[in-house]
Amino acid sequence: MDILYLILVLLVITRVFAELAERIRVPAIVGELVAGVALGLFLKTFQGNLPVLWSATQSETYTSIVSLGMFFLMLLAGIRMEPFDFARTSKSAILVAIGGMAVPVGAGLLLGTLVLPESPLKLVQSLFLGVALAITAVPVAVRIFLDVGELDTSVGKTVIAAALWDDLISLFLLAVLIAAMASGGIESFAVKDALPLLAKVVFFFAVTIPVGLLVFPLVGRYFRYLRFPEVDFSMLLIAALAYATFAERMDMHFIVGAFLAGMFFHPGVVPPKVYERVERQMSGITRGFLAPIFFVSVGLHLDFSAVAAVPAFLGLLILVAFLSKVVGAGLPAYWVGLSKPEAIMVGIGMSGRGAVELIVAGVALEAGLFLQPSPPPPIVASLYSSIVIMALVTTVLTPLLLRRLISKRAP
Amino acid sequence: MDILYLILVLLVITRVFAELAERIRVPAIVGELVAGVALGLFLKTFQGNLPVLWSATQSETYTSIVSLGMFFLMLLAGIRMEPFDFARTSKSAILVAIGGMAVPVGAGLLLGTLVLPESPLKLVQSLFLGVALAITAVPVAVRIFLDVGELDTSVGKTVIAAALWDDLISLFLLAVLIAAMASGGIESFAVKDALPLLAKVVFFFAVTIPVGLLVFPLVGRYFRYLRFPEVDFSMLLIAALAYATFAERMDMHFIVGAFLAGMFFHPGVVPPKVYERVERQMSGITRGFLAPIFFVSVGLHLDFSAVAAVPAFLGLLILVAFLSKVVGAGLPAYWVGLSKPEAIMVGIGMSGRGAVELIVAGVALEAGLFLQPSPPPPIVASLYSSIVIMALVTTVLTPLLLRRLISKRAP
Repeated sequence: MDILYLILVLLVITRVFAELAERIRVPAIVGELVAGVALGLFLKTFQGNLPVLWSATQSETYTSIVSLGMFFLMLLAGIRMEPFDFARTSKSAILVAIGGMAVPVGAGLLLGTLVLPESPLKLVQSLFLGVALAITAVPVAVRIFLDVGELDTSVGKTVIAAALWDDLISLFLLAVLIAAMASGGIESFAVKDALPLLAKVVFFFAVTIPVGLLVFPLVGRYFRYLRFPEVDFSMLLIAALAYATFAERMDMHFIVGAFLAGMFFHPGVVPPKVYERVERQMSGITRGFLAPIFFVSVGLHLDFSAVAAVPAFLGLLILVAFLSKVVGAGLPAYWVGLSKPEAIMVGIGMSGRGAVELIVAGVALEAGLFLQPSPPPPIVASLYSSIVIMALVTTVLTPLLLRRLISKRAP
Repeated sequence: MDILYLILVLLVITRVFAELAERIRVPAIVGELVAGVALGLFLKTFQGNLPVLWSATQSETYTSIVSLGMFFLMLLAGIRMEPFDFARTSKSAILVAIGGMAVPVGAGLLLGTLVLPESPLKLVQSLFLGVALAITAVPVAVRIFLDVGELDTSVGKTVIAAALWDDLISLFLLAVLIAAMASGGIESFAVKDALPLLAKVVFFFAVTIPVGLLVFPLVGRYFRYLRFPEVDFSMLLIAALAYATFAERMDMHFIVGAFLAGMFFHPGVVPPKVYERVERQMSGITRGFLAPIFFVSVGLHLDFSAVAAVPAFLGLLILVAFLSKVVGAGLPAYWVGLSKPEAIMVGIGMSGRGAVELIVAGVALEAGLFLQPSPPPPIVASLYSSIVIMALVTTVLTPLLLRRLISKRAP
């Protein structure tokens, strides 16, 4: 079991970086993410010097633990969102959500159309760029606003509510893209092929959303009469596995199901104490065990030489990542009455992409989205790595910029 | 990810059986264990009718999740033992522990010597039979005594303390056996080969026990100043991974390290609240996720046809399993002053073998202990399955017999 040794090394290093991050008042997840990816890159570069660790990362076992990590990361991300917030979303938050969704998707689509080479997958690739730009890492934003006591202000509430919507819609779009890829394959893709798949995706949501809204609270009310140990943890896991399996049967990636199941598990479904305990258990497995392993796998797929070939594209992508959120989310915020600095804070607050982006990029990579035209020219070959670097840069800069904006505003 | 589908099915079925077990006042673990093993056997028998589930059990991914399950099961078993109980062990408990250890080991050794065919591994196989008979499932005994309010009586305390010692010593013996196997191989095994390995095993315990006693409380005092999330969960996992990796480097199985690390994690090392929370998180992963998967893997290796060839041996093994504990542990208990029914309760209370036995048998199977002489005659070929069935029977019967004894005694 060299994998145990690998996990030991990974955990120690990512924990050290998480601690360092917290010491400089940056959320630990940022430290874990950067350390994990850097470690993966390091292992790949010095594989000859670290044969035991390297070979452990090349095993099927490692790959499956990474998949489990994705499953639990998405489940945890879902758990930490509360759909009841959706119902309570203010009108201004909806406008911010629409802008924060439409502008990045549009910007990604435009960027892709302009710079990507012609191929059967060009449209899907461009759409994917849009989806990748639309994602917002809620936990990082929540942590920052919580730290500075701004979570209950109009800025904080708007960012969180809008971010929830944007992530949900992004995942819906991703589901459609992956379903389309799964059927059309990477060789041929036509819009008309997407229609039966769109039907599958709609069917999936049409089943899982009512079940989540109606059946989850029902089960939550009665499962307390069951007596076996870890009943609440097991029930949530069973629900998440069922949703994930159903998503796969509908040609979607299992992460969509895991996320959705987590979303419908909230303090309204089970007593707050149970919610807290299960959230804690999931957080332990995920943050304390599986997430670092997933982050390292991202670094293993990172290809700096490909990125070095297209520095201008990478710079543009990062710029668009910030601008599309600042314009798309900030402008509506300004229109509905926030001050200019507050509107910019909304835009910056929604710019971090976090772990969900890494998962989404990995899903696209695995689906073969970056293999066309064949052989892929540098810009396509670097697409995965560019998106990962964009995710890292936005995740690291968001808390730093946000703190600066807040301290500037407060005299 | 057919594995998600497999896990879903396993979790649902084992949870149903855990619930049924609790309803008939048998500890849930007994239901999970029986259901898991039965399910594995069912899958193996009807593999043609369940191709998706069956192929998922044949993947490397499944095997690695099973290993993770063993790791967490042993870690959890260790966490639930508190070494401070060792220091407080009464003299009578020590006598019961010695008898409850020596008689089963002796009986196993004798049984092996009498019935097993000559081979280079015969001595190791016989010793292993002894170790397998010496193991006592603490959680099942604890649950029963807790249920009937007998945990704080002299019977309850004696059983728990003696069981702790017996499991620790059994694992030490297993460590020596596996180390011997790892070096000598299954072809040739000589006692003199075992000496340098014994040195390794002793070295392992000589390092890990002082570290556990001295360094764990030190870390427990200061880790609270660390700020990264899930710090307590991560610290324990890192310790367990370090111990497990160290155990492997010393030619032992990683379960020995996991168990030992868990044993040194107790409410004296960290605040009781932290202990409870981490225990809860570990229990969630293990009972609510990984343990059922491990139990199924036991059923997949079960071979009823082999057992059917040697029904007398199986019957004898089960009889010896009960008798050796009733005599070995019950007689000293009677000598030190317990009444005759109480002494029998001590012996029966220590007869359940539980999940640890399944892990130990699996380790021996994996190490190739049952491959000599080659080809193995029925009695050797059935050894793994016989031990598994013995573990199941003792685990199921112990709570039932114990309840009957208790209700008989109370007028």
